[in-house]
Formats: sequence, structure tokens, C-alpha cells
Amino acid sequence: MNKGSVLIVSGPSGSGKDTILKKVFEAMPEIKFSISSITRAMRPGEVEGEKYNFISREAFEEMLKRDMMLEHNEFVGNYYGTPRGPVDSVLENGGEIIIEVDVNGAANIRKKLSETVSIFIMPPSFEVLKNRLSGRGTDSAENVEKRMNEALCEIARADEYDYIVVNDELDKAVDDVITIIKNLRLKTERQKYLINEVLGKC
Amino acid sequence: MNKGSVLIVSGPSGSGKDTILKKVFEAMPEIKFSISSITRAMRPGEVEGEKYNFISREAFEEMLKRDMMLEHNEFVGNYYGTPRGPVDSVLENGGEIIIEVDVNGAANIRKKLSETVSIFIMPPSFEVLKNRLSGRGTDSAENVEKRMNEALCEIARADEYDYIVVNDELDKAVDDVITIIKNLRLKTERQKYLINEVLGKC
Repeated sequence: MNKGSVLIVSGPSGSGKDTILKKVFEAMPEIKFSISSITRAMRPGEVEGEKYNFISREAFEEMLKRDMMLEHNEFVGNYYGTPRGPVDSVLENGGEIIIEVDVNGAANIRKKLSETVSIFIMPPSFEVLKNRLSGRGTDSAENVEKRMNEALCEIARADEYDYIVVNDELDKAVDDVITIIKNLRLKTERQKYLINEVLGKC
Repeated sequence: MNKGSVLIVSGPSGSGKDTILKKVFEAMPEIKFSISSITRAMRPGEVEGEKYNFISREAFEEMLKRDMMLEHNEFVGNYYGTPRGPVDSVLENGGEIIIEVDVNGAANIRKKLSETVSIFIMPPSFEVLKNRLSGRGTDSAENVEKRMNEALCEIARADEYDYIVVNDELDKAVDDVITIIKNLRLKTERQKYLINEVLGKC
């Protein structure tokens, strides 16, 4: 039985997933975040080891060969992947790790790990999603439409997830994610030692 | 797929289960409580329909014959049982119902219902349990010992439950039970309609 828990969190552009996770990590700093390995060049403002590990194409391919990635994909010539090491460490040693990944990545991780808990962050309505995606004001109508379609495709697969958290009010959505994590800690499989602790002194 | 959730709550004498549940119902008055059907005489202070429905032996046996009890037992000549009707109503119409029952009753209910969520309320230690059981001061040493043994037998079966809630501090234990209930409401199986609601307007 695994000691720790792996949480997969997905949500389309416009779901507010990043803001929610930021607040969850502030409230529960003990939770680990899965840092993606990527091969594209670092962009201004990005910091090595914060959200990404910037590694070479050769290093990435070596990790693939050794089955050290839980999921990966290639996008305009660059690799993006979730390294297995930090996840295995949590499973063995306890605690929780959150992997932020898209619906395809989530499906691939579920194939490799028998026990995951997955959360889909959902906009409250079609209209709100459209407003959020067009509200940035920097995109062409065509780009908004494209992102809208991608978002709807992801939402159509929300039923692959264990939980749906609707991001209508930010604070409520943050509380909901925290509830799911606290609930995990109450599961018998993570607390079996308690039974023997109480009985052990009979 | 069931719309509502059935929560089974067990815990030995001295676990503080009754106090915890009282506070959970105060905080979440929308949650239903499964009223046991019993055939013993009403005692002073008891109110029909509060914790028990006092019914005749004939009525009870008729319910058994019609498979209208989720579990039952006989104790010094009286029947005690969990009627099926209110539970089925929650499963069909939504919401939650809490069934307070011992470990044998819980095991029997799990055989009849495919989807239950069960919580075992646990004292924090052997010593605290012993203090709580002897602390009432009204019982003989022999009675305390008997209740202690019964409690330990129940604790040894805590691993049959989905969750363990340790009652060390009352408020924390109440929060834990509330977390488990709120978590249920976030499950995809209870929120699938949301997916179509957002997609429906495409």
C-alpha cells in the first residue's frame, strides 16, 4: 500500500486552475508540486526548478528510454514530460504531490500508476468560459475561438476524473481542493498504523 | 448511478461518536439520520421517531420477511434494525443519510448496498479509551473491563472502514467528518450533470 497520494489536476484554459493551485500551495506548503521536464529554451521570467526543469533533448530521450517519465508529449519540436522520481518518492515516503497536466497526460499517468486521485477544474458555465477567454483582450477572435474549442474538448472528458471542482468563486474552489486533500489523509489505507497503535498496548 | 450517499458511522463505546454526530447534524442540518426500528419498550426520555421507531414484534418480522431491513439483530429478546426505505429514498433523490451502527451491522449493510462510505470513530489511544470508559464512575470494574474488551474487538475491525477519524480533540474530529461529507459532494459521479450544462450550449 502506498504511503502517499498522487493528485492529478487538469482544467482548460480559462478554468482558473493556476490561481487555485497557487492558493492551495500557500495554504498547504507541505504539498509537493511535480516539476515538468522540458526541452524548450527558458523564457524571460522563468526560473529553473520552479515550474520546469530545463533539460537537453538528449537527457530527455535518455529518461524516456529508462522509463523515467510518467507521461510526455512533443509540441512544436520540444518535449514536455512528468518525471517519475519525485512521484515515486511521495508514494514511498508519504505526503502528497500535485501533477498539473492536460487530459491526455492525465490519461497516460493513470495507465502507469494504479492509484491516483484526479481533479478537473471546471468553469461554471459556457458564458463565463467565453468571457474569461476573450476578456484577456490581447487575442484575435480566431485565437479565442481556437482556445474555446480546445477548452470544450477537455471539458467533455471531465468524467474521466474522480472529482470536479467548479471555479465560480475562487475561495470556494480553493476550499474544495483542500477538502479533497484533507479527505485523502483520513482514508483508512493511510491510517492503518493507528489501529495497531491503540490495540498494541492491550 | 446513485444520486445520494449512504454514510455508515461506527465507533466503540468511549469513542465519542454520539457527541461528534450531534455536532455534525447541527452544522449540516440537511443530512438525514437513519432511525432504527426497535421492538423493546420505550424508556423514560426517549421520543418516538427521534433515534428509534418503536414498533411491534409482528411489524418487525413482517419487515424482515419483505426484505425491508438493511441489517438487524436480536438482543435479549428484542429486535433492532435499519429500515431500508429512508436509505433508498436518499439514493434515488440525492443528499446524504448517516447510519449509526456497530461493526457487524456495518458489514451486513455493505453486503446489501454496493455503494457506501464508512467511517470508524477511534479513540486516540488505549489509555484514553480506558479513562473514558472507567471515568463515568457508575460502573463496576468488571463492567468497565467488559466494555473495554468490546471496544477493542471493534477497533480491531476498523480496517473494514473507508475512513478513520480519531477523536482526540472533538472539534477536529467533527471537522474531519464534515470534510468526508463535503468531499463526497465533489465526486464526479454526483456532478456529471455539470459537464453537459457547460457543453450543452455549444
